[in-house]
Amino acid sequence: MDAIDVILTKRDGGRLSDEQIDWFIRSYTDGTVGDEQAAALLMAILFRGLDGDELARWTQQMIATGIRADLSGIGKPTVDKHSTGGVGDKLSLIVCPLVAACGAAVPQAAGRGLGHTGGTLDKMEAIPGWRSTLSAAEAETVLRNSGAVINAAGPDLAPADRKLYALRDITGTVESIPLIASSIMSKKIAEGTGALVLDVKVGSGAFMKDPDRARELAETMVALGAAHDVRTVALLTQMDVPLGRTAGNALEVEEAVAVLAGGGPADVVALSLDLAREMLALVGLDGTDPADLLTDGRAMDAWQAMVRAQGGDPTAPLPRATEVEVVPAPTTGTLSRLDAMGVGVAAWRLGAGRAHKDDAVSTTAGVVWHATVGDHVETGQPLLELHLDDPARLPHALEALDGAIEVSATPVPPPPLVLGRVT
Amino acid sequence: MDAIDVILTKRDGGRLSDEQIDWFIRSYTDGTVGDEQAAALLMAILFRGLDGDELARWTQQMIATGIRADLSGIGKPTVDKHSTGGVGDKLSLIVCPLVAACGAAVPQAAGRGLGHTGGTLDKMEAIPGWRSTLSAAEAETVLRNSGAVINAAGPDLAPADRKLYALRDITGTVESIPLIASSIMSKKIAEGTGALVLDVKVGSGAFMKDPDRARELAETMVALGAAHDVRTVALLTQMDVPLGRTAGNALEVEEAVAVLAGGGPADVVALSLDLAREMLALVGLDGTDPADLLTDGRAMDAWQAMVRAQGGDPTAPLPRATEVEVVPAPTTGTLSRLDAMGVGVAAWRLGAGRAHKDDAVSTTAGVVWHATVGDHVETGQPLLELHLDDPARLPHALEALDGAIEVSATPVPPPPLVLGRVT
Repeated sequence: MDAIDVILTKRDGGRLSDEQIDWFIRSYTDGTVGDEQAAALLMAILFRGLDGDELARWTQQMIATGIRADLSGIGKPTVDKHSTGGVGDKLSLIVCPLVAACGAAVPQAAGRGLGHTGGTLDKMEAIPGWRSTLSAAEAETVLRNSGAVINAAGPDLAPADRKLYALRDITGTVESIPLIASSIMSKKIAEGTGALVLDVKVGSGAFMKDPDRARELAETMVALGAAHDVRTVALLTQMDVPLGRTAGNALEVEEAVAVLAGGGPADVVALSLDLAREMLALVGLDGTDPADLLTDGRAMDAWQAMVRAQGGDPTAPLPRATEVEVVPAPTTGTLSRLDAMGVGVAAWRLGAGRAHKDDAVSTTAGVVWHATVGDHVETGQPLLELHLDDPARLPHALEALDGAIEVSATPVPPPPLVLGRVT
Repeated sequence: MDAIDVILTKRDGGRLSDEQIDWFIRSYTDGTVGDEQAAALLMAILFRGLDGDELARWTQQMIATGIRADLSGIGKPTVDKHSTGGVGDKLSLIVCPLVAACGAAVPQAAGRGLGHTGGTLDKMEAIPGWRSTLSAAEAETVLRNSGAVINAAGPDLAPADRKLYALRDITGTVESIPLIASSIMSKKIAEGTGALVLDVKVGSGAFMKDPDRARELAETMVALGAAHDVRTVALLTQMDVPLGRTAGNALEVEEAVAVLAGGGPADVVALSLDLAREMLALVGLDGTDPADLLTDGRAMDAWQAMVRAQGGDPTAPLPRATEVEVVPAPTTGTLSRLDAMGVGVAAWRLGAGRAHKDDAVSTTAGVVWHATVGDHVETGQPLLELHLDDPARLPHALEALDGAIEVSATPVPPPPLVLGRVT
C-alpha cells in the first residue's frame, strides 16, 4: 500500500477501498504516513467527498485506532447528546443529570471550547474541585453510581481524531462535512453510548451558517450512527441569537443550576426538555416527563451527585469577575437583534474563550444579557453586562458588539428554537 | 499574513494576491510554513488552478528565492532548449553544441532522469571525466569559451522549486499544469537564457499522454516565458515511439556522437535540426543552416570543446555492458508498434533509470532497437538488444516489453515527429 495511490484515487474522484482507508488511517496515526501526505488527502476529500460506505469505514477505522468502550455492564440504557457548538449553550449541564434522573445512563465524553463557542469542560471546571480527567474505569464508576459522567476524551478515544483534527485546523480542511461528521461521531461512538441526540446549531453563532449544509451534516451523522448501531436523532436548532441569558463559564453554570432548580430562561428550559425527550424516546424511557424532574428536585439531586462524584462541590459559591461593565439599551422598543456571533466573540475577548487549544480560559469572564430577541426594552435600561477581571480587554470586546444589537419600533417575535429534525 | 488564509482563498476558488504568493513561497522555502500547509495549498491549486497573473507571480517568486543569472556579459545571444522528458531523447547532447557552433550561447541547467525517462546529466556522466557540478562562475567561463555548457542546477537556481518538487512528488500534486509549468520555467528563467525552445513530448512514453493537456502546458509555459522577457517557442513532438535507436546513458551518448559526426538515425537528426532552427530563429541567427554544421565537423568540434571544458575526454571509449540479450523479430512485416513506455521501462529496469532521486544509475545498461515503426523486419532478425551488467534484472525488463512490439502484414507509415507548434 502506498500513500500516493490513496491520494490519487481520491483526487481523481474514485472510491477509496476499505483496505486503503484502513491502511491510511492506521499509518497516519502511527506516524508512518506524514502530515504532508495526510494534508493532501484531506484537501482531496474536501473537494471530492466520501460516500456513505467510505465514511462509515473511515470512521470505524478512526475508532479502531483506540478502544470502543463497552458499557453493557452498566445495567441501564445509555444515551448521550452532542452539540456542534454555539453561544450560551449550557444544555449539557442540564440535560445530562436530567436524563440520568429519568433512569438512563449518560456517558458524555466532552470537549473544550475554541474561538467564540464555549466547551462543556471549561464550564464544568468553573465548579470548585470538579475534575474531568477521570480514567476510563473511574468514569465508568461515576456513570454507574450517578447515572451521568462528563469527562474529557481520554487517549484511547479515537486517537486518530486528535491528529486529524489538529491537521485540519492548520490546513484549511475543517469545513468538509464527512471530516466533521467522522470527527464528532468517532468520539461519540467510541465512548460507548447506545443512543445519541445531536444538536446541530444553525446560524451566525454556529459553525454551520447555512441551513442546507447543517441539514447535510445532520443527515451524514445520523447515517453514521446507524452504521455503527448507535440510534441517532438530530435536531437542527437556531443559533442566530445566543441561548439563555449568559455566555461565559461560571455564568453559564449558574444559569444551568437555575434551570435544574426549576427556574431559568424559558428558551434554555424548552430546548433542554426537547433534547431530553428525544434522548428518553431513543432508549424507551419516554413514559417519564422530564419537566416534572426539573420542578420536583430530582434533576438537581442528580446534578449534585454527578458533580460530587467528580470531586466538585455543587454548593460552593461560584467565582465572580471583579468588574462588570453595563451596556444600556440604545432606545425603547422590541429587541430585534442580539447577534450570537457578536456576543460570543465579546465573551471570548473578555477571556471566556481561547484562540489556540492549549490556551487557558477565564472562569469568570463573560456576557450577561437582560433581554433577548422579542423582549421589550426601555432606553437606558441595563441591556448587557460584560464581566471581566482584566480591564484592558474591554475595548476589544465592545468592538465585537458593534452592530450586534438592534431595537425595533414594531414588535418582533422571538426566533423558533427548533428548525428541523433528522432521524 | 497567515498560511490558512492563503489556503482558504485558493480552496474557495479565489485569486491569490501578489502579497499572498510572495509570502507563501518565501515562507515555505525558509521553513516558516510547513510541508503540511504547503501540501494543502498545492492540492487546492491542483483543483482550482492559477490564472496567468497568479502563475507569473508564483514563478517570479520561486526565482526570487535564488538568483536569476545575468549573462549579458557573454557577448552573444543566449538560447536554451528544454524537453519535458521522453525515451531515447538525447537531443540536448546534439542541439547544445550545434547551436553553439552556429554562434549562440547555450547555458543549459539540466536535470537527472526519473522513472522511465532519461536525464541529460546521467547521459553526459557516461563520458569519462565529465562533471556537472560547476560553480556559477565556472559554468559562465565554460559558456564563454565553448559556447555551450550543460550543468546541474545549483543551489541558487530557484531553490523553492527543489522543496516544492519533492513535496509534489509525495503528495499526488505532480499533475497540475501551473505547477509543472512553474517548476520548469522557474529554473530556465533563472539560468539566465534570453530565449527558449520547449520540446513538449506527447504520447505513451511522455509525461503528457493527452495532446490537449500537452498543448495547454506548452501554452502556459510560452506565456510564462513572455511574462519574464524570455522569448519562448514550444514544439509538441510525438513520444509514442522512442527517439532514435537507443535508450540508456552511454548508448545514447554514442548515438548523439554519431549524429554530430554527420550520421545517426534520421528521426534524431530531423528533430535536432527542427529544434536548432527554432532556437536560432529566436536569436536572429537563422542565416545559418545547422544541417551544414553536422556534416562539416563544426558541431563535432563544439561538442568536443564543451566536453573537454567540463573535464571529459570526448575521444575516450565509452563503457559497455558485459551482457547483451537479443530479442528477435516475432514475424515478417512492418514494425507497427514499438511502445516508448515499454522500451523506457525496460531500460529503467535494466539499470539505466532510477526510482528515487538519489538512486545511482548504470552507465552501460539500456536498450538498442534495430528497427523503428515503419521499418520492414524479417522473422528472427535481431530486433532489440538488452544491455545489462546484472543478469538478475533481465526477466523483469523483458516483462516490460510484453505487448510493446507489434509487426503488421501491411505497410505502416512512420509517425510524424512534430505534432504542433506554440508561439
